[in-house]
Amino acid sequence: MKKIEHIGIAVSNLEEAAKTYEVLMQEKPYKTENVESEGVTTLFFKSGESKIELLAATNDNSPIAKFIAKKGEGIHHIAFSVEDIDTEIERLKSEGYQLISDQPKNGADNKRIVFLHPKSNHGVLVELCQERTD
Amino acid sequence: MKKIEHIGIAVSNLEEAAKTYEVLMQEKPYKTENVESEGVTTLFFKSGESKIELLAATNDNSPIAKFIAKKGEGIHHIAFSVEDIDTEIERLKSEGYQLISDQPKNGADNKRIVFLHPKSNHGVLVELCQERTD
Repeated sequence: MKKIEHIGIAVSNLEEAAKTYEVLMQEKPYKTENVESEGVTTLFFKSGESKIELLAATNDNSPIAKFIAKKGEGIHHIAFSVEDIDTEIERLKSEGYQLISDQPKNGADNKRIVFLHPKSNHGVLVELCQERTD
Repeated sequence: MKKIEHIGIAVSNLEEAAKTYEVLMQEKPYKTENVESEGVTTLFFKSGESKIELLAATNDNSPIAKFIAKKGEGIHHIAFSVEDIDTEIERLKSEGYQLISDQPKNGADNKRIVFLHPKSNHGVLVELCQERTD
C-alpha cells in the first residue's frame, strides 16, 4: 500500500455536498465522472497526495443509494494505491481476506480497482486501486 | 487544509485490529498512545504522508465505545492538518460550520485538535489538527 489514494464519501446531493467541501477544503473540485457500472456520479478534490471523492447515486440500485438508506450520508470507503493490484489480490486472499469481487474492474479516475469486504477490515470497506496504463 | 493527516478507525479490540492492519498495509504500527481525556487508546500506522489511527475505547463513556455501540466498528473520522487551527476555527465558524468544541484541545500524536460536527459535513466527523510547538 503506497499511500491513501482517496477517501470516498457517500452524499445525497452532489451539488450541495460539493459546496460544503469547497468551503471546508478551500479547493475547487478538479474532476467529475459518471461511473455507470456502479450507478454513481463522482466529484474529486485534491488533498495533499490524496483525494476526497464525493459519491452520489444515479439510481436506487446503486451501492451508494443502499449505503445511504441504511447508514445515512458519511464516509463510505478508504482507497489505498498499490503498484500491482493482481499481486495484492493474491497476497490478501492467501492471508484470508475476503474480496467483494475476485477480479479488478475499471473504476473512476482511470483506475483498476477491487474492494475488500468490511468484515475483513473491522468494518471498513477498503478499495485497492492501481493506475491504468492502457 | 494541507493534507489528510489521518483516518481514525474505531475498533473493539486494538490488538486484533492491529494484526489485521499490519497484514493489510504491510506496515508495523509506529506508535501507541493513551489519550485519557478522550477515553481511548490509539495505534498509528504510516501511509504515505498520512496515517491510519486505530482507536479503542478504554471505558464505556468513551466516544469510541458509544460510536461502536451505535454503528459498529468502522471509519470514525477524517483529520486534515492545518497551519493555524485558531484561524481555521474562526473561518469555519463564520461560514456557518458547527464545531463540537469552541476551543482546540490536546490530542494524540502531539497535536492541537478540534472536531467539526458531522451535521456540517454531510455525515462526516472532521478533525482539524495542528502540530504542537510547545
